[in-house]
Amino acid sequence: MSKKLTKRSEDYSKWYNELVVKAGLAENSGIRGMMVIKPYGYAIWEKMQAQLDKMFKETGHENAYFPLLIPKSYFSKEAKHVDGFAKEAAVVTHYRLRTTADGKGIEVDPAAKLEEELIIRPTSETIIWDTYKRWIQSYRDLPILVNQWANVMRWEMRTRLFLRTAEFLWQEGHTAHATREEAVQEAQQMINIYGEFAENFMAMPVIKGVKSETERFAGAEDTYTIEALMQDGKALQSGTSHFLGQNFAKAFDVKFLSKEGKLEYVWATSWGVSTRLMGALIMTHSDDNGLVLPPKLAPIQVVIIPIYRKTEQLKEISDKVNEIVKKLKDKGISVKYDDSDNYKPGWKFNEYELKGVPVRLAIGPRDLENGTVEVARRDTLSKKTVAMENVDEYIEQLLQDIQSNLFKKAADFRDTHITKADNFEEFKDILENKGGFIAAHWDGSAETEEKIKELTKATIRCIPLNNTQEDGVDMLTGKPSKQRVLFAKAY
Amino acid sequence: MSKKLTKRSEDYSKWYNELVVKAGLAENSGIRGMMVIKPYGYAIWEKMQAQLDKMFKETGHENAYFPLLIPKSYFSKEAKHVDGFAKEAAVVTHYRLRTTADGKGIEVDPAAKLEEELIIRPTSETIIWDTYKRWIQSYRDLPILVNQWANVMRWEMRTRLFLRTAEFLWQEGHTAHATREEAVQEAQQMINIYGEFAENFMAMPVIKGVKSETERFAGAEDTYTIEALMQDGKALQSGTSHFLGQNFAKAFDVKFLSKEGKLEYVWATSWGVSTRLMGALIMTHSDDNGLVLPPKLAPIQVVIIPIYRKTEQLKEISDKVNEIVKKLKDKGISVKYDDSDNYKPGWKFNEYELKGVPVRLAIGPRDLENGTVEVARRDTLSKKTVAMENVDEYIEQLLQDIQSNLFKKAADFRDTHITKADNFEEFKDILENKGGFIAAHWDGSAETEEKIKELTKATIRCIPLNNTQEDGVDMLTGKPSKQRVLFAKAY
Repeated sequence: MSKKLTKRSEDYSKWYNELVVKAGLAENSGIRGMMVIKPYGYAIWEKMQAQLDKMFKETGHENAYFPLLIPKSYFSKEAKHVDGFAKEAAVVTHYRLRTTADGKGIEVDPAAKLEEELIIRPTSETIIWDTYKRWIQSYRDLPILVNQWANVMRWEMRTRLFLRTAEFLWQEGHTAHATREEAVQEAQQMINIYGEFAENFMAMPVIKGVKSETERFAGAEDTYTIEALMQDGKALQSGTSHFLGQNFAKAFDVKFLSKEGKLEYVWATSWGVSTRLMGALIMTHSDDNGLVLPPKLAPIQVVIIPIYRKTEQLKEISDKVNEIVKKLKDKGISVKYDDSDNYKPGWKFNEYELKGVPVRLAIGPRDLENGTVEVARRDTLSKKTVAMENVDEYIEQLLQDIQSNLFKKAADFRDTHITKADNFEEFKDILENKGGFIAAHWDGSAETEEKIKELTKATIRCIPLNNTQEDGVDMLTGKPSKQRVLFAKAY
Repeated sequence: MSKKLTKRSEDYSKWYNELVVKAGLAENSGIRGMMVIKPYGYAIWEKMQAQLDKMFKETGHENAYFPLLIPKSYFSKEAKHVDGFAKEAAVVTHYRLRTTADGKGIEVDPAAKLEEELIIRPTSETIIWDTYKRWIQSYRDLPILVNQWANVMRWEMRTRLFLRTAEFLWQEGHTAHATREEAVQEAQQMINIYGEFAENFMAMPVIKGVKSETERFAGAEDTYTIEALMQDGKALQSGTSHFLGQNFAKAFDVKFLSKEGKLEYVWATSWGVSTRLMGALIMTHSDDNGLVLPPKLAPIQVVIIPIYRKTEQLKEISDKVNEIVKKLKDKGISVKYDDSDNYKPGWKFNEYELKGVPVRLAIGPRDLENGTVEVARRDTLSKKTVAMENVDEYIEQLLQDIQSNLFKKAADFRDTHITKADNFEEFKDILENKGGFIAAHWDGSAETEEKIKELTKATIRCIPLNNTQEDGVDMLTGKPSKQRVLFAKAY
């Protein structure tokens, strides 16, 4: 298989698909819409998980685990929720297979039909609120701050690795509160945590905002979102946090005795990010040579490659390298010394470039003589020869520089791709020729939103938090508007 | 809900079920055979996961993720494998729901029937070997050392929290090797890792051995096992590691080009432990007052409870406690200071006893005067007043003592419950009146094994590794035997 990627400028979508496979991140399984996450891709996801999990726990959340299968009737209890998920439901109807009459194959045993069909969870609000009913009696049982790391299933018709798959991995937080204020605060806290994670760890700038009613989660009163911008000018919703009001408490009859002795419905939130973040990470930073990873999420932060002709040289180089490896590890830097003799250095250079390893060191006989080492950074593709002494300190600083440089680059791109449009012609022109977010006035109606989507494929990504208020008119209907909202074509 | 548990001597099974629920570990969901793992139970599982994951990675394994759903036809490819799992298969047949004709409910959409049914993975050999076929061409691609943390589904008819549930959480390692020897070595290495984990972290002594053909994993050539002994004299299989030979490579046609340029089938292993370990942990150490946790797996290692009448006293106590908390945390000890005023100290004492917190400190006004603190250990239920100064060092040592004491106690119990039987009457007598493992001669046939099971419900748990060889005769058939094997009733 050629390591060469299609160029982004030629076919961005093809570039993405090739990169995911060639960098060893994921691949399509033989099963419709379901992917295999390969070890290198999974190692990045594990780093994301570890950091998010830490942030959740620091804010008082605990993990738990709820059943994979949810009875069909649970979904019907919240009207909007079932509308939102019924069309994508994977349904378990039987619980046994049997040998076929000819003894050669297996078939579903018709005698093992379930009385009520079970749905593979597309999200767990219903099963969790059915459980919370048992856990909550009084205000003393509140708040409940629970998160679950799990797989979920939504039978999407058009799938793409990481971005949209029938099965995906995610975390879903589900909290229960005594007051509306506390629940709103929780929903906002979590979107802030997602924003912090995206910017400080993924080096991916995001806009925090609230969704229009049309784009809201099925069953929510408000959906907060972080929206990122990909290099092709399309937006990617990267995490959402929902204020669910009392909808699920009412659907599952979950009441609590308040401090004042009154029976009241419980207030709720839910919030989640998924393996979709992998797609966002890839498309934010990577280039025509392959993956570019921010150091904080790179499974290998530094790779060291020996350059040699004779075995004695390798021995000498390895002695030096082992010293460097030790120093780097002491600093908590993950480092791989690739002294395998299966491949030539040039092949290895390309391979680790494709895999997005932030820093590459190369050491040859001349370096040994001069006490130097060649340092290449993945983000700028630049090389520099530095003194071997204190190279660990140099690299420690370099990793920080790369992390900030990646964020800065992505933020510059994003900032130059938020454009105001004051009429519909301008809007379409920007959408077609420049892409990115378009700040435009909107009359607030779902009809207008739908019409714009039909005409342009652009949707309202969000109404930014703390949005500037200004008088204007809807670009399509001419109706009055108090603020601009952000439109974009989106993944 | 009363916190009081049924006594073990009265009804061991009832004691277990009550303990799991009352200690907040897990509960039955409304859905047949599926449990909710509650935050406290999940926190223990997370500690297990973290340690096992570390041990897997230290031995060169990487994590990955494979699809939840497996096409029915994949199972048929390995004959014994399908026999083993067909009867417990949860089957997905449809991928959409629709609104009923009366508009009031939802039903399965018959138009959305899958061409081929999908099975929720009961284990992932088939989907993984279907994938490995794409990953493996030459000896350079070997070995593959991959592990997956996942949920699996086996439609068990009789379920019990943690011990046997339709859905459970586990890890499944799946490795591919160029030679038989290497694969056998891997399977053995992993059973040793499981043994080390059970003994050093769970404080649970285990016997390592190999399964008889009848008890072997469906599709394996050899199954290695670790067998633990519960307090009621029943054995519990706690982890298995399978040498799969070339069975799955042949079923999925996975060949590699060897160094010598020959096309050969790949050799395989798989190995797993599950949330069943939670059941083993609970039943190994706990007592009539509740859970007893080994310090290495306790989410809270030390709880501190203030004893006071007046608010000023609480303030003084808290100042002292905060110093102790800081010192303990600096030593990496997880500590909870429970100064909530919802409950009285006596209630808290019972609560943390029920939850198995290894060490409890109580501090009252008199302790402040005397510079002392009351230290209670959960394993022995003994109390001691010690000097507040250097209490952190005292506790650090105490946690180690508790860890070793728990192992010793369990090992003593196990060792006194391995009994030799030389005839069938003796065998039945021991089984009925003493329980535990029975070392007896067996003629090696599946028929005899089956007969003993029918007559006594005892099964061969394992043939211990490095088993003593001695001549004898099968207690039932009188046929010659070269070694004793271990029988027991089992969970």
